[in-house]
Amino acid sequence: QKKWEIVSLFMCGAAMLTVGILIGHYGITNAPSWVKDVVRDVDESLIEKFLSEVDNIQIQENLKELTKVPHMATTAGDEQTVQLMLKRWQDPESGLDQAWREEYLVYLSFPDPKNPNKVTVVSPSETVLHTAREKEKSYTPDQDDPAVVQPYAAYSPAGHQRGRLVYANQGKPSDYLLLNQTVDLKGTIAITRYGGAGRAAKAINAAPYGVIGVLVYTDPLDINDGLMSDANETYPHSWYMPPSGVERGSFNTHYGDMLTPYLAAKEETYRIPVEDITGIPPIPIQPIGFEDAYILICELGGEAAPKEWQGAFNCTYNFGGPGFKPTSAFNNSDVKLDIFNHEKIKNSSNVMGVIKGSVEPDRYVIYGNHRDSWVHGAIDPSSGTSVMLELTRVLGKMVKQGKWRPRRSIIFGSWGAEEFGLIGSAEYTEVIYNESTRCLNSDTNPKHSFISCSANATLRASGMPSVQNVIFKAAKQVSSLKNELVSSGVSIQMGYLSGAGSDYAAFVHYLGITAMDISYTYDRSKTNARIYPAYHTAYDTFDYASKFIDPGFVSHQAIARTAGNVLIRLADSLVLPLNCSDYAEILEDYLKTAVNLYQNQLQVKHISMDPLKRAVASFRSAATHLDQVILSSDLANETPLKVRRINDQLMLLDRAFLNPLAFPDKYAFRHVIWASSSAGKPTFPGLADAYAKAESSGQPRDWDKVHYHLSVLSQAIEGAANTLLITKQ
Amino acid sequence: QKKWEIVSLFMCGAAMLTVGILIGHYGITNAPSWVKDVVRDVDESLIEKFLSEVDNIQIQENLKELTKVPHMATTAGDEQTVQLMLKRWQDPESGLDQAWREEYLVYLSFPDPKNPNKVTVVSPSETVLHTAREKEKSYTPDQDDPAVVQPYAAYSPAGHQRGRLVYANQGKPSDYLLLNQTVDLKGTIAITRYGGAGRAAKAINAAPYGVIGVLVYTDPLDINDGLMSDANETYPHSWYMPPSGVERGSFNTHYGDMLTPYLAAKEETYRIPVEDITGIPPIPIQPIGFEDAYILICELGGEAAPKEWQGAFNCTYNFGGPGFKPTSAFNNSDVKLDIFNHEKIKNSSNVMGVIKGSVEPDRYVIYGNHRDSWVHGAIDPSSGTSVMLELTRVLGKMVKQGKWRPRRSIIFGSWGAEEFGLIGSAEYTEVIYNESTRCLNSDTNPKHSFISCSANATLRASGMPSVQNVIFKAAKQVSSLKNELVSSGVSIQMGYLSGAGSDYAAFVHYLGITAMDISYTYDRSKTNARIYPAYHTAYDTFDYASKFIDPGFVSHQAIARTAGNVLIRLADSLVLPLNCSDYAEILEDYLKTAVNLYQNQLQVKHISMDPLKRAVASFRSAATHLDQVILSSDLANETPLKVRRINDQLMLLDRAFLNPLAFPDKYAFRHVIWASSSAGKPTFPGLADAYAKAESSGQPRDWDKVHYHLSVLSQAIEGAANTLLITKQ
Repeated sequence: QKKWEIVSLFMCGAAMLTVGILIGHYGITNAPSWVKDVVRDVDESLIEKFLSEVDNIQIQENLKELTKVPHMATTAGDEQTVQLMLKRWQDPESGLDQAWREEYLVYLSFPDPKNPNKVTVVSPSETVLHTAREKEKSYTPDQDDPAVVQPYAAYSPAGHQRGRLVYANQGKPSDYLLLNQTVDLKGTIAITRYGGAGRAAKAINAAPYGVIGVLVYTDPLDINDGLMSDANETYPHSWYMPPSGVERGSFNTHYGDMLTPYLAAKEETYRIPVEDITGIPPIPIQPIGFEDAYILICELGGEAAPKEWQGAFNCTYNFGGPGFKPTSAFNNSDVKLDIFNHEKIKNSSNVMGVIKGSVEPDRYVIYGNHRDSWVHGAIDPSSGTSVMLELTRVLGKMVKQGKWRPRRSIIFGSWGAEEFGLIGSAEYTEVIYNESTRCLNSDTNPKHSFISCSANATLRASGMPSVQNVIFKAAKQVSSLKNELVSSGVSIQMGYLSGAGSDYAAFVHYLGITAMDISYTYDRSKTNARIYPAYHTAYDTFDYASKFIDPGFVSHQAIARTAGNVLIRLADSLVLPLNCSDYAEILEDYLKTAVNLYQNQLQVKHISMDPLKRAVASFRSAATHLDQVILSSDLANETPLKVRRINDQLMLLDRAFLNPLAFPDKYAFRHVIWASSSAGKPTFPGLADAYAKAESSGQPRDWDKVHYHLSVLSQAIEGAANTLLITKQ
Repeated sequence: QKKWEIVSLFMCGAAMLTVGILIGHYGITNAPSWVKDVVRDVDESLIEKFLSEVDNIQIQENLKELTKVPHMATTAGDEQTVQLMLKRWQDPESGLDQAWREEYLVYLSFPDPKNPNKVTVVSPSETVLHTAREKEKSYTPDQDDPAVVQPYAAYSPAGHQRGRLVYANQGKPSDYLLLNQTVDLKGTIAITRYGGAGRAAKAINAAPYGVIGVLVYTDPLDINDGLMSDANETYPHSWYMPPSGVERGSFNTHYGDMLTPYLAAKEETYRIPVEDITGIPPIPIQPIGFEDAYILICELGGEAAPKEWQGAFNCTYNFGGPGFKPTSAFNNSDVKLDIFNHEKIKNSSNVMGVIKGSVEPDRYVIYGNHRDSWVHGAIDPSSGTSVMLELTRVLGKMVKQGKWRPRRSIIFGSWGAEEFGLIGSAEYTEVIYNESTRCLNSDTNPKHSFISCSANATLRASGMPSVQNVIFKAAKQVSSLKNELVSSGVSIQMGYLSGAGSDYAAFVHYLGITAMDISYTYDRSKTNARIYPAYHTAYDTFDYASKFIDPGFVSHQAIARTAGNVLIRLADSLVLPLNCSDYAEILEDYLKTAVNLYQNQLQVKHISMDPLKRAVASFRSAATHLDQVILSSDLANETPLKVRRINDQLMLLDRAFLNPLAFPDKYAFRHVIWASSSAGKPTFPGLADAYAKAESSGQPRDWDKVHYHLSVLSQAIEGAANTLLITKQ
């Protein structure tokens, strides 16, 4: 009895002690509640859920809605899209935490609807022998919309110019140089084809030779694989550009609002005098269709232009006498440009939205796409906008239902006035200039270039080397969904963001924010088109997109899945999925090329490449070190401030490559690795350009500039390497 | 029985359960070990310990050791101090975690020991009537050291100039303008007194009038309260400057190495051609003692100079005929300058040391002081160095004994070549340019100006408004120690770091790092000396410092205690002790002044001050918001990432005020609030200068520049306000 009592007492006591310990340990936790939050990593099941909810039909409906009317920047159609974005992002069931508009007063250029720009051939007796089309031919009701803007060159000065016609190929400096050796260019009008040089450059390069006006057209060789007939070859029978199609565009060199360089274009912001603007055409320029270009070029007199100047027309492209052949009906006639463009300061809106982060609300992942188009803009930009809207719908719903809140904040931007020179995104970067140390990644969405080629769809992803990894991961995961239409054989083409082609420019070049640009593009082995053929024409419509670019909208769906996947990983990962060793690799490639190309000659000039070699080696060693720290750490169980430190190092890496001294002649280019370059070498852009200039001029001061840039570059890379360490030594 | 059994069972069970819960909860902790570390705040008992260990005798011995020989930058004496710093900081018992030297090849200027600079009065018959002293008079063996450099103007060009003498007061633009109205300045030599204008400016302002050489001296009025005799009035009888004393100095306008602007001056760094250097004297200039100046000035002919130009000599200061009085023995004589200065690129070292942080090793508190002097430099800079060495001894010992490791890293810098234009610190900032987002605070130590006046010692602390609070706290705590000699009635004089007076300049103006400069200074109600009188002379010795500046070294001790106290608080506090509302206050003051001074006239010019008003209001509201977040948070119990965010906001606040567009004419000035200004108004410096220029020229383009600067300023303040919030809206 006693024994039983003791045993039962003991057993009861032991059991109670055990229960107590368990309650004490697990029931009354003494770890603060935030401990779990700060070490939480990305949730793969959430990504699966996101991928499954992205709906191609929703994207198609978004595109239909967005392309109902033309929505050129600051027009009534643009305002409709502003309202649409706000409505969607403020939707109580699938919207974001907050959405608002930000307005800028920006300097734009428009044709005059009452005085359309005119291009005519005028005989010596003042008879008008030919008039170029003032609007593109209609194939669907879309082209008849009165809001379709006449083809024009934004920022071309108004003016009335009349002169003999010459053919100047692509309007490159070398083209005018060659042409000028045969023809006296003084007082002439030059016709050029798109490609080879920037739009504004075709006029800027011409003016020093006395050329007084420029025409530009798209040669069927460059866009239509040579096809020209709308009877059966071009749209509406295929994706090719019809003969009357005209590529509109912004004819400027710098990005952002021109009157407020480096400052946000607010109402009371100081504006520079219009005469101080640089980088715009000094002489009138006007784009025309190849239908009209054919009539002009095939009648030109003078010597035959070189083989590389010949396009797809079934005639020899001559330089021009100047002017037309003696045998032509246009003999002795002039070409006349009557340009009525005018500039206006107009109110352009960015629509902004945010999903606030739970653990690190002051770390931002930015996802943006421009909203304004030239005409209906089904591909450029609405394909991207329709994808962004589907992505925010799926994410917004998860947030509103309480199923998800990202670790970091996500900012969405629907930029305005991109077509006039990346204005909306550039003004935004001028506003956040001082906050940019918090910004993580501008996941800019495609501007254009979706196409469905089921077996050969190419995912084109451009970005800093450090983002390649996460893009590959996301793309593989999406392609493994084995969608019926998008085959799993999707190939990925990785590139770099070295120009100022789209809204990533101000983020990359001005602020040094790690960025990427993801799109599906067509198979370049099957066509020579330099871009999708309806680009910036009145044919870039829902009809065109749904028939010839992505029937069924499965490529759109794949992009939404890929981009969203990347976005969630950037926003939720405990350690940012950025890889600094991939950056080291490209620096080593660039160095190797630079040494091969320049070292011998630089030695002759007593300029050492050693500091650059040492800097790249420092970077590699620092990147390897940081990789090892990440690999060897059990970050989910270490202090969250260690994760914070590593994330800061990864996040700020691109900022460390900024140096405002690097490109004194390039507006808003500060990233020493990714700036644009005219030298066309796969190496450090500033070095390549400075070297090319010194080599061509032979001037000691130009060799000094090579040395100077080498110092700037080496110290920037050395500095970037230091940011990957904790302290020096 | 049964009942007893049940009761005993129950009681035993309950007891065991309780014990179990206690063991489970407290015994087996399930909170990760880092939880305590990340929320630990500053340890007040550790500060007490630090304060009690700071020893005045150690500081005195440091000073004796540092001032054994002259240690001008890059000389053998300088190398001795480098070795001393390294030895101390690498001491196994009281050193830092690591210490090393960083070398820069910098452009310096020296006199020629074999051809000393000469200033003579030469008669028409080529007789030398007077020769100015080539070296200062000896009162102690210190002045006889062969390493005492001849008084000279660093960066004055070499040259041999001869002309009639004129008196140009302080060499300000207005002085030469006035003088030129009476005297033809062409071919003259101008004698000027120190003060009123920068050293180089005295020659730069003169050259356009045809002046060919300049002399500069220290008038007894400005430094000695009028006293002149070394028989009983000046050193060695008091702290006043002896008649032969000469203030040496760097005669340049910009800071940092002149040949490598914005780049670290490494061996292979590109160097600009010497002829491209700006901001140095275009004509020879030489400093002399007031003993010689007296002989020259009192013999000058011409009209009497205005009252404000008169100094302490017992004669009327005339303009000069040009030249001397007809009644003078120097009648018709010229003054001749033979300057043999030469420039050299020399190897200058910063000595760096680090105590690595435990929790946030990648957040740096920087504490620096320059090491190089002109001669023995007892006050400038060795008083600061001797304090820094005592501070690192006490902190280093605590670290080596395992008693302390700061939360954040502390970096110590012993800068080289400060006297030649803040070169060492500026080169350092050029190296850490890309890492500066991690830097917290440059706690620059005093360059000079200790003095013991037991009842009236004034602590002079300059810094960003945000640091006032922690300085007050530290200073109060130190004064409450009631040291026998330093009374508790110590007063604190707070100022701002608006010029480029010492090594804080590159940190504040170029990198936007919150900074402070702490010193004890003399009671300005008791003397009109513009600086301590031995400044930059051969009399700034240990003898001078220990007799006339701080006998007993208790002021040095108080500074070490105050600065160390601040340093520990910056390094250890959970939330950085920086106050953004104090910043809002100064912005409001500046705005009020600007509105009073400028608004009416700006309205006439259609330039609105509203954006500036809105920006300052945004800043105040954001600062109040952040203060409330800090106050209302239980930060020791919330996620450490919240503390991290707040600390980032406080740490990066000054960076947000940087705008490289703000001061296009000022080298390396980017902080819109603290840049130097010539307008002398207590308001935004760029606005004040731009306004003054526009008002004086009346040119529309100058008014445009006012508008432009207003936009830059408003957007910088608005941006800074945004950094205090998490996301906009």
